[in-house]
Amino acid sequence: MHVLRINTRTREVRAEAVPPSWERLGGRGLIARILLDTIPPLADPLGPKNVLIWAPGLLVGHMLSSCDRISIGGKSPLTGGVKESNAGGSTGLAVARLGIKALLLEDRPDDDRWSVIVITPDGVCFEPADDLRGLGVYASAERLRSRYGKQAAISLIGPAGEMLMRAAGIQNLDRDGMPTRISARGGLGAVMGSKHIKAVVFLPEQKAKPPLADPAAFREAQKVYDKALLSHPQTKTYHDYGTAAMTSMTSHFGSLPTRGFSEGYFEGWQKITGEHLREVLLKRGKPSTPTHACMAGCVIQCSNVYADENGNIITSPLEYETIGLMGSNLGIDDLDVIARLNHEANDLGLDTIDTGAALGVAGRAGILKWGDGEKALALMGEIRRGTPLGRILGNGAAIAGKVLGVEQVPAVKGQAMPAYEPRVIKGTGVTYATSPQGADHTAGLTIRAKVDHLNPEGQAELSRKVQISMAGYDTLGACIFAGFGFAAAPKDTIARLLRARYGWDDVDENILAELGKQTIRLEREFNRLAGFTRADDRLPEWMTREPVPPTGAVFDVPEEDLDTIFEEL
Amino acid sequence: MHVLRINTRTREVRAEAVPPSWERLGGRGLIARILLDTIPPLADPLGPKNVLIWAPGLLVGHMLSSCDRISIGGKSPLTGGVKESNAGGSTGLAVARLGIKALLLEDRPDDDRWSVIVITPDGVCFEPADDLRGLGVYASAERLRSRYGKQAAISLIGPAGEMLMRAAGIQNLDRDGMPTRISARGGLGAVMGSKHIKAVVFLPEQKAKPPLADPAAFREAQKVYDKALLSHPQTKTYHDYGTAAMTSMTSHFGSLPTRGFSEGYFEGWQKITGEHLREVLLKRGKPSTPTHACMAGCVIQCSNVYADENGNIITSPLEYETIGLMGSNLGIDDLDVIARLNHEANDLGLDTIDTGAALGVAGRAGILKWGDGEKALALMGEIRRGTPLGRILGNGAAIAGKVLGVEQVPAVKGQAMPAYEPRVIKGTGVTYATSPQGADHTAGLTIRAKVDHLNPEGQAELSRKVQISMAGYDTLGACIFAGFGFAAAPKDTIARLLRARYGWDDVDENILAELGKQTIRLEREFNRLAGFTRADDRLPEWMTREPVPPTGAVFDVPEEDLDTIFEEL
Repeated sequence: MHVLRINTRTREVRAEAVPPSWERLGGRGLIARILLDTIPPLADPLGPKNVLIWAPGLLVGHMLSSCDRISIGGKSPLTGGVKESNAGGSTGLAVARLGIKALLLEDRPDDDRWSVIVITPDGVCFEPADDLRGLGVYASAERLRSRYGKQAAISLIGPAGEMLMRAAGIQNLDRDGMPTRISARGGLGAVMGSKHIKAVVFLPEQKAKPPLADPAAFREAQKVYDKALLSHPQTKTYHDYGTAAMTSMTSHFGSLPTRGFSEGYFEGWQKITGEHLREVLLKRGKPSTPTHACMAGCVIQCSNVYADENGNIITSPLEYETIGLMGSNLGIDDLDVIARLNHEANDLGLDTIDTGAALGVAGRAGILKWGDGEKALALMGEIRRGTPLGRILGNGAAIAGKVLGVEQVPAVKGQAMPAYEPRVIKGTGVTYATSPQGADHTAGLTIRAKVDHLNPEGQAELSRKVQISMAGYDTLGACIFAGFGFAAAPKDTIARLLRARYGWDDVDENILAELGKQTIRLEREFNRLAGFTRADDRLPEWMTREPVPPTGAVFDVPEEDLDTIFEEL
Repeated sequence: MHVLRINTRTREVRAEAVPPSWERLGGRGLIARILLDTIPPLADPLGPKNVLIWAPGLLVGHMLSSCDRISIGGKSPLTGGVKESNAGGSTGLAVARLGIKALLLEDRPDDDRWSVIVITPDGVCFEPADDLRGLGVYASAERLRSRYGKQAAISLIGPAGEMLMRAAGIQNLDRDGMPTRISARGGLGAVMGSKHIKAVVFLPEQKAKPPLADPAAFREAQKVYDKALLSHPQTKTYHDYGTAAMTSMTSHFGSLPTRGFSEGYFEGWQKITGEHLREVLLKRGKPSTPTHACMAGCVIQCSNVYADENGNIITSPLEYETIGLMGSNLGIDDLDVIARLNHEANDLGLDTIDTGAALGVAGRAGILKWGDGEKALALMGEIRRGTPLGRILGNGAAIAGKVLGVEQVPAVKGQAMPAYEPRVIKGTGVTYATSPQGADHTAGLTIRAKVDHLNPEGQAELSRKVQISMAGYDTLGACIFAGFGFAAAPKDTIARLLRARYGWDDVDENILAELGKQTIRLEREFNRLAGFTRADDRLPEWMTREPVPPTGAVFDVPEEDLDTIFEEL
């Protein structure tokens, strides 16, 4: 494994040995380490000192189910702090197959040229991207695939990233070559845009595989993990219903963000459940399907393909967060409309969470009537055209709130909240408040814990535990749902896999927590140096004051709990 | 003297004794003290926990030349930190005549009613302001003056404050009743808007006067001060040319912000100098005049009245900061156009610095062609109509830069820079970076110091000294130009005035520095609690990298100098 550094201004390429302090990290943890080692904490996120990083997790490269995720990171132009955003698809596997421990895009051009970076086992080259400027993600991906072949793994940005919008993400291809696996959060697409890179194409040898210290032991541990994962009841739930399975649950708790986070119950919830989605997809039949794998080897296959009644694919996958933020949050109960909004966001290269939340802010501002899907689609068109209103929305909910004069913005550290109302699911509220990443459900969702979610007591401890686990999984490259498998498998399964992969004889069953703690420690250190304080570890004030129907809950976890959550790490 | 607390939600009014720790402060220093004592540092600046404060300086109330300024303050929605913004006009005198040490507007209404608050010696009343909603500042002031009489002192906001725009200030009447003395900076107009207060009308008894401990000694010290002020050469300069006298000086140094702070030299500079302005005004004759007092009793009279060729007043006064930010910064060299832009900003209730800087950002974004005055005026019209683009600009340069994708924004702590290029006048750059107020020339301008402004060495010490003095003057209620008089008068003049006013026998010639240090200490403490760190004490990164023609200077004062400037206070 090596570190690949590419200077986007000078086009100098250096392959370097992995520094010792980076060796035992991958994915999210490695990104935090690299930020501390290479980016001045006060750097302008869209300036030449920021570095855009690809780092596969520690377990990536072996088609272990749900464990081939790619982490992309840098200093976030949305939060101003550490940012790691991981995605499925084929990028993680390809980067690992190229023997790349971390890819660093440094500096930025001082001219107007845009490039595609192509990485093969033989080297790196810059190719002109002028023909791709302004092109949507789908058309860009199609053109790149025809140019570089169907086996190419590609990370690319859409018009939103080119326009430096802070809700822009970076898309990756799924195993079918669709550019729908997005490192969505924190504006990394704008960082890529600031470096004038439209796409990075990864072309490993298809047979290449990262070495295993003990192949037999790896296969053995893999079997144990697979079995545990397959037998976990949630695997079947997500297999059948996808992440949309969450709608019923959040609705039941009164925590389904509705009409700009003004309510937690949506009268049209039954039309946007996983159950209803499955029904629609099965009824429509191929190419619609409720069950689809984003990564090769995944047994969960929580993804789906959503086509219209005539069999034309609208989007893939339609996820719960999008259903929440672009559905109930906008008062929209029509899955076809939500799927079209999702497609627009994907094609623009936008995070559906921050964009959906920004549309919710537009609703609060009176610009969008609740439930008016056509107007919501028209607003996506404004983003595409880069109009003033489009730029307001494309920069995410927090900036939209400031510009449009809306106080009730659901965001922390400038990043919009996912579809779990934090006044109701208070442990997740603690996660939103205290995660170094900003509001992020993948940093520590607590909704499945058997606790009284409305009781503020004990939520910080619960969030802390889950945040540490998730930071560990994100460092391994494991999907949020791989956790079901690891949790159900013998405690030493992760350690066995790491020992068999790397020959690290000293790792034991505490390794997940150790990786998680180390990751959060590094992230908090970077944020501290970048100017973050306890002031940043808060939900917006209005959520501590305005009760959310139907529960009437406010966010009332004591500030002291937020301030002390990571006192010992 | 008493403290007047008005709850804008319950309409409860309380007159309270002055707390001991507030007694020896006024103006800016008192506002910092009140922030620490009454506003939770993490409060949402536009939420119910923010408090909007009026506090006259310690010397206000006696028509001491240039010493009757009103400080208005609160937590800034633009910077997120402490904010004091002072203005001339008649408000300071009226508040002092009402015996008010500090007026606090607390909480905010939970309904849609807007009010005018009327304060008389007999009490406080809320009157409906529905007829004033959306009305410009000039028409509003006229209507209020016809309702409450020509003697009324009034603080009021325009449409920008009503729309919660972060570049909105609070206007005060000058001694002729024109609403042109603006507490411009930091978005305090939006705070007033958030509390649904269109205006505060002060109706003191005209003969009332704050008591003097030793009237004879006060008059004696006043004479000494007046004489020193009158004999200072700068007094004559500002009397004749107003603040526009600065144009020649900044142009000479290559520090006149030009075309979005991309250059420090403007080829049209001679058409926007104080000398040219005086010529135009003298030629046009009454009502145009280059010499006008904003406060009763002022001997400097740096203000002016700018009328068009037909004798219709366009604006009053036309100040250097406006000429720089809305003139050279936009490539505009026509004083008539600049005056019209100034009028629009005044009528909307907008800070010309942050609005001019935002228009400069629009220029950088390609929305405004340099030198296109009609388009700039059209953009002011967008602000008035509250269109998306108007809202972007009305929220100031920092937010405009984020939304429009412009990196080169001249702002610190979210507040735009005044018209002194900090890469050239580096001491002022240090002030911009480190003042707790954000970028602000009145917090410590160094351009008159006899130093090599391009040499980074020693600039922090210079800035520190001036910042402390200015914080002292702002606490006294003294205009930035009163300093000429105090500097030329015997060292104990301020102490003599304070002793004669309050009977404080223990103040000596160090009082100015003591007040200044105490003020900055309190302000930094509030900012620290609000989440500010050294990361906030920086100029924007691009100014450390991009040389500004014609000097080719970058901002290169060592970061350590910025970090240690207030180590001992």
